[in-house]
Amino acid sequence: MGLIVQKFGGTSVASAERIKAAAKRITDTYKAGNKVIVVVSARGETTDELINLAYELTDSPSKRELDVLMSTGEQISIALVAMAIHALGYPAVSFTGGQVGIITDSYHTKARIKNINADRIQKELDTGTIVIVAGFQGIDANENITTLGRGGSDTTAVALAAIMKAERCDIFTDVDGIYTADPRKVPLARKLDKISYDEILELASLGAQVMHSRSIEFAKKYNVPLFVRSSFNDNEGTLICKEVKEMEDIVVSGAAVSKDDAKITIRAVPDVPGQAAKIFHEIAKRNINVDMIIQNASIEGRADVTFTVPRNDLQLALDTVERLKEELGAGEVLYDSKIAKLSVVGIGMRSHCGVAEKMFRVLADEKINIQMISTSEIKISCVIDDAHADRALRVVHTAFGLDKVVKEKEEEKVVHV
Amino acid sequence: MGLIVQKFGGTSVASAERIKAAAKRITDTYKAGNKVIVVVSARGETTDELINLAYELTDSPSKRELDVLMSTGEQISIALVAMAIHALGYPAVSFTGGQVGIITDSYHTKARIKNINADRIQKELDTGTIVIVAGFQGIDANENITTLGRGGSDTTAVALAAIMKAERCDIFTDVDGIYTADPRKVPLARKLDKISYDEILELASLGAQVMHSRSIEFAKKYNVPLFVRSSFNDNEGTLICKEVKEMEDIVVSGAAVSKDDAKITIRAVPDVPGQAAKIFHEIAKRNINVDMIIQNASIEGRADVTFTVPRNDLQLALDTVERLKEELGAGEVLYDSKIAKLSVVGIGMRSHCGVAEKMFRVLADEKINIQMISTSEIKISCVIDDAHADRALRVVHTAFGLDKVVKEKEEEKVVHV
Repeated sequence: MGLIVQKFGGTSVASAERIKAAAKRITDTYKAGNKVIVVVSARGETTDELINLAYELTDSPSKRELDVLMSTGEQISIALVAMAIHALGYPAVSFTGGQVGIITDSYHTKARIKNINADRIQKELDTGTIVIVAGFQGIDANENITTLGRGGSDTTAVALAAIMKAERCDIFTDVDGIYTADPRKVPLARKLDKISYDEILELASLGAQVMHSRSIEFAKKYNVPLFVRSSFNDNEGTLICKEVKEMEDIVVSGAAVSKDDAKITIRAVPDVPGQAAKIFHEIAKRNINVDMIIQNASIEGRADVTFTVPRNDLQLALDTVERLKEELGAGEVLYDSKIAKLSVVGIGMRSHCGVAEKMFRVLADEKINIQMISTSEIKISCVIDDAHADRALRVVHTAFGLDKVVKEKEEEKVVHV
Repeated sequence: MGLIVQKFGGTSVASAERIKAAAKRITDTYKAGNKVIVVVSARGETTDELINLAYELTDSPSKRELDVLMSTGEQISIALVAMAIHALGYPAVSFTGGQVGIITDSYHTKARIKNINADRIQKELDTGTIVIVAGFQGIDANENITTLGRGGSDTTAVALAAIMKAERCDIFTDVDGIYTADPRKVPLARKLDKISYDEILELASLGAQVMHSRSIEFAKKYNVPLFVRSSFNDNEGTLICKEVKEMEDIVVSGAAVSKDDAKITIRAVPDVPGQAAKIFHEIAKRNINVDMIIQNASIEGRADVTFTVPRNDLQLALDTVERLKEELGAGEVLYDSKIAKLSVVGIGMRSHCGVAEKMFRVLADEKINIQMISTSEIKISCVIDDAHADRALRVVHTAFGLDKVVKEKEEEKVVHV
């Protein structure tokens, strides 16, 4: 008998049938004796359609008006979900973000929640009513409609779960949960029963298809257990929670590869204090996120500086560095956009030695050259040639015991195919 | 340099091109030195599409949730109109009904405006901003979203014009204005330059295609001049205003015919006090609106009572009367659903004699039998066989000088065709 927040993404409310299925899940949870707050996204492609309408009128729609426009998508969903719950014979009431006092700052299209006045929700819950809240939206101090940007509905759900002290927050989506690797790249990827906030955050690309890291940070901050599961079946999902003892036994929880970065090398930078600061100050001024940085040991008072930037920002970063070259007294500037970053993550790493060594050896056995390395407490990343990316992911996945156990029958199938 | 309210109906904002055209009209009015408040409806078929979504889920959607759902239609329109105005280089800001303090009662799907707190609109107007308000919607005292029912956007526009003391309220729609008769039935129908609130209200069917009588009553009450015009051309529209001197020179302003009624006759009702009261009390209890009532002169202590009801309510009214027959000690009950009501209206009637006589004579000359007659200060209605309805309308229209003057060229065309 607790309070449960359930969030349904756009695909989970895309059609009348799916809305009815969502209503069934919601009322099943309610019938089991729980109070339920439901957060819903806009149906399917609604938001894109609305944005297209705006761009038919102007190339630079006002962000305030975009928010007025886009917020209708979730408003449609909440009304429909409430009706579907009524049709099953249960009490439900829908609210927009503004109506339930989700107060944000005024940064339209990417506002952040500042405060939630949950009195109205509490009042409805107290009367035994299921409360449906529009995700992704709020109002600022002047009652202008705002939206929360990418992953906004998840943020709404987690924020409501946090402030209402919910037992957990269910995230219903179109995948079964969080996998040890992207199943499209690694056929033997295994669904995880549990993973910690930190692991998901470190390996954003594992979770990115499911939840935006902003909402996971929020869940971590307020210690809201997230239960990611499919709205299309009854499979057990994945629980994202704070680290628990048993997790430490699993050395590596997941592996991922991304091809979103490019590498820049500045040769022969004079090895005097302040050079690195100068470079990265100029890069930062242009809003480019630098991920990995390596500086070689200095030879004859000069060192090579290599770093990675988002591939989209490569040209801007190159221009910046070229302009700086003379001032630095540095040598030539090289770049490579055909790289991939392979990462493994696991909170067990902290207490287990040899994870890095094992990863390097596996790659060496496959004759895959490691160009850069970066490590954190619970993550190891290697930059490699992107031609080897998927193969490298699969061998590392196997080496760390992440492959699913194929049952006899399935094995047979594998053999025969 | 005044304040003008401009209302754009659903067809006037149905596509990007039409929204741009609306924005052009709005900014032209603004450039001429006026402050402008714009009220918009949902685009084209949006509201119907939303309602269909609801009925895919349930046969009896909650009215509160229908309002949450339907109000998104106007919210989409306001954002798009604001963007289109921005694209022309003018300042504009959009508001939902709730945001500008349109407070209604709690009768969802047919709420009535109780109060408007216009501070926010005034503040924006004072800074020279064009204010776009979502029509058709408001919030109740508990901030639940409400909608105003049929003709709701017109009501919003008129209410805002009244409270803001606007110079006039432009109603942009898909017709050129108010005609002396329905042009589909009377090819020679003429567009009126002016008509009084009372005439439009008496001849609802003339104006019904353009504006709901509720908003005209509102305009009359607060003396808001309404200017009905097409959003597709620059033709002069029709001004709906209070009676002015010159109007009295025009005896009849318009004519209309409706086939929405049916006639019921109760034969040989004993002519004792309270019989009529008994009949119409039972009818009223069933929410049936009775329009015309005739009682014949009593013969041998018995009279025939004839009345009209909406055709949709005929069966219910007949059942009611049949059950009552015995109690009344009346004779047989007859009915006829093949009737039409022909009306002419004009405030000039009050000071001109012979209007009724002329109407009766014209119908007699055409061998059209008059079954019932009812008159008010500014209207005469006759019930006739519905087979003659359109012909009767045309001859009456001509007899009262309502036909448009066909110019020579047009006459030629008429002859040759």
